[in-house]
Amino acid sequence: MLPLRAIARRILSPSFRASRCSSSISSFPRTISSLLHTPLSDEKASETVTITGWVRSVRRMKNVSFAHVSDGSTIHPLQAVLTKEQSENLSMGASVKITGEWKESVRGKGQQSRELLAEKVEVFGEADPLTYPLQKKYQTPEFLRTLLHLRSRIPANTNLLHLRSGLISTLTAFFAENSFIQCHTPVITSSDCEGGGEVFTITRPKDFFKTPKYLTVSGQLHLETLVAAVPRVWALGPTFRADKSDTARHLSEFYMLEVEIAFIDTLDPLIALIEDMVKTLIRSISTSRLGRETLSAAGGGDKAKELEERWRGLLERSWSRITYTEAISRLGSAVEQGDVQFVSPPVWGAALQAEHERFLAQTVFNGPVFVTDYPKGLKPFYMLPSVSTPPAPEGGETVACFDLLVPTVGELVGGSLREHRYDELLAEMRRQGITVRDEDEEAESLRWYLELRKWGSVKHGGFGLGFDRLVCYLAGVENIREAVAFPRWYGRCDC
Amino acid sequence: MLPLRAIARRILSPSFRASRCSSSISSFPRTISSLLHTPLSDEKASETVTITGWVRSVRRMKNVSFAHVSDGSTIHPLQAVLTKEQSENLSMGASVKITGEWKESVRGKGQQSRELLAEKVEVFGEADPLTYPLQKKYQTPEFLRTLLHLRSRIPANTNLLHLRSGLISTLTAFFAENSFIQCHTPVITSSDCEGGGEVFTITRPKDFFKTPKYLTVSGQLHLETLVAAVPRVWALGPTFRADKSDTARHLSEFYMLEVEIAFIDTLDPLIALIEDMVKTLIRSISTSRLGRETLSAAGGGDKAKELEERWRGLLERSWSRITYTEAISRLGSAVEQGDVQFVSPPVWGAALQAEHERFLAQTVFNGPVFVTDYPKGLKPFYMLPSVSTPPAPEGGETVACFDLLVPTVGELVGGSLREHRYDELLAEMRRQGITVRDEDEEAESLRWYLELRKWGSVKHGGFGLGFDRLVCYLAGVENIREAVAFPRWYGRCDC
Repeated sequence: MLPLRAIARRILSPSFRASRCSSSISSFPRTISSLLHTPLSDEKASETVTITGWVRSVRRMKNVSFAHVSDGSTIHPLQAVLTKEQSENLSMGASVKITGEWKESVRGKGQQSRELLAEKVEVFGEADPLTYPLQKKYQTPEFLRTLLHLRSRIPANTNLLHLRSGLISTLTAFFAENSFIQCHTPVITSSDCEGGGEVFTITRPKDFFKTPKYLTVSGQLHLETLVAAVPRVWALGPTFRADKSDTARHLSEFYMLEVEIAFIDTLDPLIALIEDMVKTLIRSISTSRLGRETLSAAGGGDKAKELEERWRGLLERSWSRITYTEAISRLGSAVEQGDVQFVSPPVWGAALQAEHERFLAQTVFNGPVFVTDYPKGLKPFYMLPSVSTPPAPEGGETVACFDLLVPTVGELVGGSLREHRYDELLAEMRRQGITVRDEDEEAESLRWYLELRKWGSVKHGGFGLGFDRLVCYLAGVENIREAVAFPRWYGRCDC
Repeated sequence: MLPLRAIARRILSPSFRASRCSSSISSFPRTISSLLHTPLSDEKASETVTITGWVRSVRRMKNVSFAHVSDGSTIHPLQAVLTKEQSENLSMGASVKITGEWKESVRGKGQQSRELLAEKVEVFGEADPLTYPLQKKYQTPEFLRTLLHLRSRIPANTNLLHLRSGLISTLTAFFAENSFIQCHTPVITSSDCEGGGEVFTITRPKDFFKTPKYLTVSGQLHLETLVAAVPRVWALGPTFRADKSDTARHLSEFYMLEVEIAFIDTLDPLIALIEDMVKTLIRSISTSRLGRETLSAAGGGDKAKELEERWRGLLERSWSRITYTEAISRLGSAVEQGDVQFVSPPVWGAALQAEHERFLAQTVFNGPVFVTDYPKGLKPFYMLPSVSTPPAPEGGETVACFDLLVPTVGELVGGSLREHRYDELLAEMRRQGITVRDEDEEAESLRWYLELRKWGSVKHGGFGLGFDRLVCYLAGVENIREAVAFPRWYGRCDC
């Protein structure tokens, strides 16, 4: 009998789970990943298989040709051995179906110990080498961004699709196991929640809605509605900012992971949940083939090592925490001691600039740091005053909020406790000029949001995490325009 | 040593998985669901617990009061036993925290064998009975739709949040196990794909993009891009139609589950996948507490029985399949035999009307039916001609497509093989007047879509399933405006 650990491993392994799969799936072509990563059974020295995919390269020798074929199931291609005639119409990018003997490589060269000895080769779609834009030479990310419809065929971009998908499915399981309800918050909304932000406006068809509508900038207010019915909710959906900044960290359409939890009265559970969640994601990738391929895709030796180091650092350390007031004082002394120079001097009451955030995350903490309790004047109307009043300059009011800063990416998460008291919220909304019309007027205001505090209000809080930024951070990708298959930013909506 | 099966059960059980959960979660309040559904351990006749939630009802006796408290984790409330004083400020809708002894009920009345003998009662947020809109009497769905921000507190609506979330997480696991990649297709798009459809247009900020942009009507074209890199993709995201029809089956913003698969050359694998997928969803709910609560929430005895019957029928039968041409002939003979009368006579070449679809699904097949190979003239430009030419009137061209019709809901899924040949696609696009500009003009056209056929094109196909309609169908809910927390339709974007 197998030892317990081995049984557990077997039951939890992908191949065991695959065996429970449905009959419809078994009719799909065998994936190259399943061929490369399943040992040949001992009895068989070879087996006849059929694969489909795209040619990544062809090497023509005198009597024989080698084609590397990829089907997107793994970043590694399969090596097929072809006769001269079989390889005639093959070129990079062409789609093919090859049937042959899958067997030990007699040549033993390269990374693969097995190869496909082609018997039948069928070309589905050719790729004229004279026009095909993805030739084998290195293409810059900028160039590839002009070819959004083709760039997913590049192995590093294929891997990003896998990684993004893997992170979503791990997140979904994580939240389900922890009794969170996944919700869909609306894209078309009546109010420009955060105020001041640039929003996209829908004006046509004319008169479809009574007034102009906006693309949501956050699902938070709607999640607050739901958290008054089910105390743990989360959402992963598109949000929009008509932000003209042309940086590697901003998109006009981006995915936010938002969480809202009722019956909490400090930031602690939110902060602990974020750390747990991200560590769960890293554990899931770092122990899997997805992780190994992400490291390969990250680039040559040093880049992969750096990324693995990043994962390890995130996993092993307990993440840092500091109040805004402490951060300002920390930044001030660093300037005084001549350790650093900033364009904007760090001043209590002013926003932390990107340069300040970078210094905190990269130099002071060398890892993720939660900065809590920012001045009230810097934050939106819905935040609760700080719970335990941290030291602050006289008269300096702070709110119970946090930003999570991480090296290279900057702000990854923003969260807070929400003002749950009717009178205090109303006063703050009025102070900030937010429309709260009377009951007999059209319900185009945030009255509904205020009303959540009228009946059965509870303490609650939540956060929003920039999912595309997280993908960048975990993949070691520098520009957020690579983390999304079809990025939109100022002036750009190709494809 | 435990037998193998028992070990497997233990490893796969929720409690084992929960034990791997992170410390952050354990700090959350105990859910009422976990109390109601976990037996008291044998040694303990009672234990001290703290619960938080909302009061659903208060019954005041002479010396004692009974409060039903719900926290949204289950549709069943917990019964708390309070002194007269403790229940003083309690009313329906108020939020509370109660600490007390969780023990066998001495009264033994009602459905619960245990109750919470309150020691300490704290009211977080009161709910004035004079103004609280959700009084205990029955509220119509129409009335509740005017209170989107509150209606999730109604048990049947709370259950729909759970059901929707449960379906998403089962789908995510299903697709992950079957090596499908989950993708995010863009909301802001440059083209009005299906043509003719009413689209929402983003016009502001002016000049943010060079030309007006649209809210996506389908992610299909973008998924076709990705399926040329990873052969099995899926997406679940918002799609939009500025459709003025005011029916129980249409929303302006709705969720589509879209799948695209490469290297297939018949409709069979798509049809088999849909049947598998929906059966997997039904199996997952029908054997779980979520399913039992969905049946309770569906309403009194008969409604629950009907719904359970529906699930069983969907699971046990193999789903029907018929060509459009056969369907027309079937409808025609039914009319001839006087079995049915239609407002629009069924004629080859004309669209199936809702009345026809209803008759097919409800009367002819009494269950889901795939109708395949519609006339080309009824369908969009991207569909492949029928693979095996089914019998059709002379000169009647059909395409390789299908609609899945189900009773009560009507069209649930639409899918097809896609035209993968460059010349044929270009000809059809030109015929239908779709912009395919030359290379040197601005890339605002569908040139990118056409170019997918230029290099390494492969046969492929896919489908889109109306996720909100599926939620309705599986929950036994009649109006799609209940399946979404914040529905948008013609003239309505409340909250």
